[in-house]
Amino acid sequence: MNQHALEDVDVIDLGQIYNGAYGSLMLSYLGADVTKVEPPFGEPLRSRVADGDGEPPELVMLNSTKAGITLNLKAERGKELFKDLVRDADVLVENFAPGTMEEFGLGYETLSEINPELIYAHGSGFGEDGPKSDRLAMDLIVQAESGVMDVTGRPDDPPTKTGIAPGDFLGGIHLAAGVLAALYQRARTGEGQFVEASMQDAVYPSLMSQLANYYDDADVPSRTGNRHSSLAKAPYNAYEADDGYVAILCTSDDHWRALCEAIDREDLRDDDRFATNVDRVERMETVDAAIEEWTRTRTRDEIETTLSAAGVPCGSVQSVKEVIHDPHLEEREMVVEIDHPTEGEIRVPGTPIRLSESAKPDIEPAPRKGEDNDEIYRERLGLSEDEIERLRSDGVI
Amino acid sequence: MNQHALEDVDVIDLGQIYNGAYGSLMLSYLGADVTKVEPPFGEPLRSRVADGDGEPPELVMLNSTKAGITLNLKAERGKELFKDLVRDADVLVENFAPGTMEEFGLGYETLSEINPELIYAHGSGFGEDGPKSDRLAMDLIVQAESGVMDVTGRPDDPPTKTGIAPGDFLGGIHLAAGVLAALYQRARTGEGQFVEASMQDAVYPSLMSQLANYYDDADVPSRTGNRHSSLAKAPYNAYEADDGYVAILCTSDDHWRALCEAIDREDLRDDDRFATNVDRVERMETVDAAIEEWTRTRTRDEIETTLSAAGVPCGSVQSVKEVIHDPHLEEREMVVEIDHPTEGEIRVPGTPIRLSESAKPDIEPAPRKGEDNDEIYRERLGLSEDEIERLRSDGVI
Repeated sequence: MNQHALEDVDVIDLGQIYNGAYGSLMLSYLGADVTKVEPPFGEPLRSRVADGDGEPPELVMLNSTKAGITLNLKAERGKELFKDLVRDADVLVENFAPGTMEEFGLGYETLSEINPELIYAHGSGFGEDGPKSDRLAMDLIVQAESGVMDVTGRPDDPPTKTGIAPGDFLGGIHLAAGVLAALYQRARTGEGQFVEASMQDAVYPSLMSQLANYYDDADVPSRTGNRHSSLAKAPYNAYEADDGYVAILCTSDDHWRALCEAIDREDLRDDDRFATNVDRVERMETVDAAIEEWTRTRTRDEIETTLSAAGVPCGSVQSVKEVIHDPHLEEREMVVEIDHPTEGEIRVPGTPIRLSESAKPDIEPAPRKGEDNDEIYRERLGLSEDEIERLRSDGVI
Repeated sequence: MNQHALEDVDVIDLGQIYNGAYGSLMLSYLGADVTKVEPPFGEPLRSRVADGDGEPPELVMLNSTKAGITLNLKAERGKELFKDLVRDADVLVENFAPGTMEEFGLGYETLSEINPELIYAHGSGFGEDGPKSDRLAMDLIVQAESGVMDVTGRPDDPPTKTGIAPGDFLGGIHLAAGVLAALYQRARTGEGQFVEASMQDAVYPSLMSQLANYYDDADVPSRTGNRHSSLAKAPYNAYEADDGYVAILCTSDDHWRALCEAIDREDLRDDDRFATNVDRVERMETVDAAIEEWTRTRTRDEIETTLSAAGVPCGSVQSVKEVIHDPHLEEREMVVEIDHPTEGEIRVPGTPIRLSESAKPDIEPAPRKGEDNDEIYRERLGLSEDEIERLRSDGVI
């Protein structure tokens, strides 16, 4: 159990901001050696702190366990060094706008000639081809184009984004999955390939309930607040508690009867007008009002304890602060507190991918900008101290 | 290029509803042979159509290209047959509530004794351990517990779910990635392992902007509508058009100046009070009003055409119907129209994972319930017609 799934896999990581960086983080947590390569002025995330040189929490959270070097891909000497790095790498991850690597003269065709075993992974907003492939794509744009905004919010609200970044993270993990599939294929064929995953593509399947509504000709508004997306289940909502909200839903009539007993509404349990889900959907307002009458005077904890004991599906609406300190996520090491040189104590994500026979990630703080320049340029590329110093003064690294 | 990444990988798929079924769909699209195993009365999704025997669109969309058999895992003979199936399988995927397979006597320990090379993948709401592991976990519950609801909606709204199912799909693709990592590791070690991915874990990193706000001590509301999650960028919003909404944002001052020119507001471009992002954030209401004054009288198409030509990041808020028929997704074969035996013409998702040297999925309609019983029980398990008939009449298949 001391080995990792991706033992000896060497990843060059041009991933930046969220999308690419998350894909390579997952590879890193699976045991790959990931070297994050930033321009000398730092990847875009660093500009979120005043001097452009620092460690914003996003960067710290998405780059744990990676090594970090700087390299100017616009300089001729920088391009040469990059090719040297790629020459014996297994994987390259990047999420620049489509065409950027070709502009650097470092596109897939060039790099695959240098290293035919290279797995080259490109994450983007809209992918390599198709009429929207040139579009600038931040998560908000992808949320608009992919339908996420259309289906989020209350019926009378305008379309609403979701606070999470589904494009970046669904895109990033699909890209990592593509790399893993290509590694598996390469173990058989000995050949590398080009891998891509776009944010819009990756979000599409998650619209499943609304895709189904479309084919069911379901006559429901595109946005249903916290109610079921086709208004086909009751109870199903977030109910106000004394100290916040609790999500409660019933997927069976047994759940409903158990809920009625838990909230002391045996009268509803025995009322034929509420016996089946179809009945309850017809009287959704009454159902929701009855539940909220009970929840409103109780804390989320009381509600959760009572309903969980009764076997009714429920969950507190947790604040971000509560999620970061969720004892469940702590116990599972999905949040791990590290001591970062500049950020101090900060909780970074662990890995959602758990393998019983692969060692857990040994989470190290994200590299400071260029932290591993000396080591990697000296030991991996065999440069002398003098050469490294010259690269530094020439602005190549 | 006629081969698939997962050539010769054999997957037994107990995945149901969204989470597990999506994970195994991705494996199927990568070329694995996936056999969907349902109870004789069908997986839960089938109950969404009246006779419980049918093909709701969700099932059709998440089970393309799989084979389908029925098997009663509660019957002794069913357990035996299941063990026979697993004996020479590579992967088992399931997303039952934790403990269910152990109740069937078919837990990982039992199955890994029968087949030490088996990769056993379990998808769940909250994972195998930790205080919440026993919780019933539908996507809404996970959205509550993981913070998605807290960060979605306008500041004055209650916490709001997102219309997509982030728990199911982020969980499902992380599970598939775990399987791929385990396959790669097995190619080296020859041994299988237990893989898990929970929905809450998988959602956690996608809360990145809010996790960062927490550490930045950013004094912003937890919900910011369509504005930037830390109210740190302007313009950044969904603006009303004549026929809907368009998302527009500027990540640089160049974007801002280009936008001002495109909307004929050179006065704003030249106004020092709006020169930098910090300035514009201070005057966010004015900025948003100026843009919306222009967008409101134009169609989404006009706005997109004008702003894209000016190099300003933007995207129409598309309805679900528009997304399903998006020419971009069509050209990329991310939506593929198939002719399904009972559903007729229906558009199913393609794969977000693109590999240049692995054949594209050859998308076949999802199996009807038990469609491949005869073939698989006869050819794979060597049963006679009589035996298969008896299994059928005994309710085992």
